[in-house]
Parts: sequence; C-alpha cells; structure tokens
Amino acid sequence: MAERNIRLTLAYDGTDFYGWQVQQSGRTVQGVMQAALERMHGHAVRIVGAGRTDSGVHATGQVANFITDIGSIPPQRFREAVNSLLPRDIRVLASAEAGPRFHARRSARHRVYRYYLSCAPVLLPHMRNYCHWVRRVPDIRVLNGMASLLVGEHDFTAFSAEGDKNVSKVRTVSVSSFHAESGMLVYTIAANSFLWKMVRTIVGTFLELGEQGGGAEGLARVLESADRGTAGGTAPARGLFLERVVYDEETLENPGPAAGLSGDGVFPGAP
Amino acid sequence: MAERNIRLTLAYDGTDFYGWQVQQSGRTVQGVMQAALERMHGHAVRIVGAGRTDSGVHATGQVANFITDIGSIPPQRFREAVNSLLPRDIRVLASAEAGPRFHARRSARHRVYRYYLSCAPVLLPHMRNYCHWVRRVPDIRVLNGMASLLVGEHDFTAFSAEGDKNVSKVRTVSVSSFHAESGMLVYTIAANSFLWKMVRTIVGTFLELGEQGGGAEGLARVLESADRGTAGGTAPARGLFLERVVYDEETLENPGPAAGLSGDGVFPGAP
Repeated sequence: MAERNIRLTLAYDGTDFYGWQVQQSGRTVQGVMQAALERMHGHAVRIVGAGRTDSGVHATGQVANFITDIGSIPPQRFREAVNSLLPRDIRVLASAEAGPRFHARRSARHRVYRYYLSCAPVLLPHMRNYCHWVRRVPDIRVLNGMASLLVGEHDFTAFSAEGDKNVSKVRTVSVSSFHAESGMLVYTIAANSFLWKMVRTIVGTFLELGEQGGGAEGLARVLESADRGTAGGTAPARGLFLERVVYDEETLENPGPAAGLSGDGVFPGAP
Repeated sequence: MAERNIRLTLAYDGTDFYGWQVQQSGRTVQGVMQAALERMHGHAVRIVGAGRTDSGVHATGQVANFITDIGSIPPQRFREAVNSLLPRDIRVLASAEAGPRFHARRSARHRVYRYYLSCAPVLLPHMRNYCHWVRRVPDIRVLNGMASLLVGEHDFTAFSAEGDKNVSKVRTVSVSSFHAESGMLVYTIAANSFLWKMVRTIVGTFLELGEQGGGAEGLARVLESADRGTAGGTAPARGLFLERVVYDEETLENPGPAAGLSGDGVFPGAP
C-alpha cells in the first residue's frame, strides 16, 4: 500500500506533560500522539517532532510528521481524525501531506519560541500556567538592548544547561526581541536550533541583569564568558511556547501551508 | 477589639472547585477562603460572597466580605496577606474597608456575568477551560436580536433550573448583549440577581434557537411560556465568568474603589 508522509501542526498545554519526548514513565506529548496514531492505524506509528519541548513547556505551532499507510483519509482530514482520539490538552491545528523526504526535526530551518512575562499587580488565576509573573519587569528598552545582542552566530555555552548533549554550542539567532502584547511583555527568539533550556536561561538572565542594572554590557560579558555560571537562573517552563517551526519553502515572515493557527499569538486578540 | 468589615474582590479559576458555596464535601471557593482566613485569624471566619457561582464557573470580579478583629493590617494590605495563604487558582485582586452594614450579597445592586463562545476551527488547548467551543456560532445580529428581548423586568421561570428555590422568578435585566472580543463572541448580562443556572440556560437557548432559526420570535415564545421545557439545554459552566458586582454607590459604567482588575475582560488585551 502506498505510504504517505503526513505533517501536523500541533498545539498543547504543557502543564500536565513531561515534555515532548517519550520516556520510560510519565505522560509525554509524543507518547500520547503515538497512542492515538496506533489506535487509528492498528499498529505502532512513530512520530517525529521539530522541537523536543521540556516538561511544562507549551506549543501553539509544534510541527511533527509520521508515515501513514491509511490510504482512505485525505491529508487535511487527519486533523479531525486524530483530534477525535486525543485528550483536550493536545490539538492538531492542521494536517497536510509532505514530500517523502520531509523530516519535522531535520528539515526545520528556524524554531520560533515566545516567552510571556506578566507584571500585573495580581495575576488572574486562569493565566497562571501560561506566563511567568514577575513583581517588576525591567524597562522594555533595557530588555531589547540585551536581546538584540543575541542576534547572529554565537557560542551559547553560557546559556546551555548541564547535561546538554550538543557537541557544538554555536547557534544562529535570527530574531531576538521583546514587544508588549495583551498586557504582557513577550520575548520572541528564532534560531536554527536551540540548546537544552537555552530560552529559559536567556530569559532568566535578562531578568536578573535587568534587576541588577547589568544591562547590555552585562549580557555581552555573560555571552563572551561561555560559562554557565555567569548566566542567570532558568525562568519557569510555564511562560514558554514553541510558537512556530519554519521549513525550507517558507520564510519567517510567511507561514507555510500547514501553519494552522500558529503565528496568531497565544492569547486571542493579541495583535 | 474594634471590628472592621473587609470587602474583597476575588478572581478564581472555577475548574477545580465545586462552586462557591461550602458543602459537606468537595473543594469550594468559600471553603478555601475561610480556611485561609481562619489560618490568619486563629479562629473561624465566615465570608459572604455576592454570587453563589456553580461548579466550574469562573470569576474575575466576585465580591465578598468578612468581619476581622485583626487591627494591625491596613485594609488594602489584606490583599497580599490573604493571597500568601491561598492556592494559585484563587486570587484577591483588591481589598478595602467597607461600611459596617455592607453585605456582599444583600447590598449588591447588579451582578454582571460574561459568557465566552469560541468558534475557532480548533480550540487552542490553553483556552479549553475558559470558553465554550461551538462548531457554528449564529450571526451576532441574530444573537443580539434575541438578547435584547431580555432587558427589563421579566418572569424568568423558563430559564430557571429544576431545584431553584427562589419564590419569585421575576428579575430585572439591565444589560443583555453580545460583542466580539479576542476572537470570541462574548455575551454580557447584568441583572439585580439571577436564578439558578439562568445565564447558562439563556446561552443554551440562544444557541439552539440560532441553529434552528427560531430567532427573536422563538425567544419571545420561550420567555412568555414560563415553562423550562421550552428553553434550550444548559451551556457548559466553563464559558461563564462572574465579571463584576455593582453596589449602591457605584454604577454599571463606573467601577467602585475596590473593583480590582475586574472589568478589564477575562483575556488580557481584550478591549
């Protein structure tokens, strides 16, 4: 039977998942997706994700692919078919047929993450799992002064976590900036790929330097040190969303055909 | 010791509560609030809420009051003091001293509820507990044609639930309208008080009549029938928020001094 390569755009609430990647024990996004696909196919189906999001990290535009031998379902109908088998905290936003060589992780050119910071006097309870509440957020100009320094090709050793298995810590960042959205400060970072906990360590460092007044000079020193000990703490997972993954035929400005709802911002009504 | 009457504005995520009112068993908002106040005071403290929200119903502007004999805390500091003893799904948005005769329920002039409807192709998972997803939402003009008929003094027997203990089913509705907000359709209803499950039955009826094309004429017939059997189903609790409570010295347009964040809309960035 003819096999097809199906590409999915996924959103999930990471709160109750031990991250993307299947583990010996614990509920994972990949595990729940594979269980749904196995039910649908009658045999095990392996799914590949573009970003191995950590425990508690959310997604509004994760991309994944799997090989199907079910010939009877048009590619765009996999969305409803898989959703009917998934728990409410994962949704397929879009499904499409991809070329036979498409690989969600290896074909990805950019990953775009967003980190949401709130400094509301009191955080509304229904926002509590989807942003990081800070008593005082540094001035957005100070934050952007630091953020802009990360654009380009750099050794991000200072922002990697102990246990990161990447041989090279050099990454190319194409977007790194803050904007105000929905009453929050939102940090957007796009790179070819990321080290383990890199975004959360970057945000934690921004916040500490912002508090201490270290600013752009402080950040430059941390980056140049290539020493994790000089960076700040790791900001909580709950503020982080994998927002989009960009492939060859697409640009950062122009979402691809299977982008689904991604790129609309996490909170409805966001610009 | 001098006693003071403290007024709180509360927000809560109703998902994990069996409603406001203390029950024999089950986690309730009133129960959790009273446990926090007891820890603070060293003795039992009874708290009165303006609206007895049902299981699963949320609030961004519930109002409650209690009598304190703690003289050492300025009224506005009860916010932080109580928040430090509460779980993350309840927050005190504001605290203030009220007159000795202020009673959160009996003094209330208007209660304002909002119901959030989404008809996004796929609902983002982190919105799943905070709105009702419907495949097709009726035209907003059709909805407003029905909604406007409820303004004024009416017998709402048709929209009451079996088991409602109110002797009179006559209520005065001062606002009843839909607007588009944050990519959703939002129904706002303000009344002097509400019957049990009244808002959810009204919304369920709007949706059924909207599907069937019954429109304003259909709604008028349901209202006049004074028969619960003619109304639609009860819309799910997850879409409903107690948004605000209005007291004597305030107007619907003008929030009072202890309004906290209420009135800002449930989702940040909403107009």
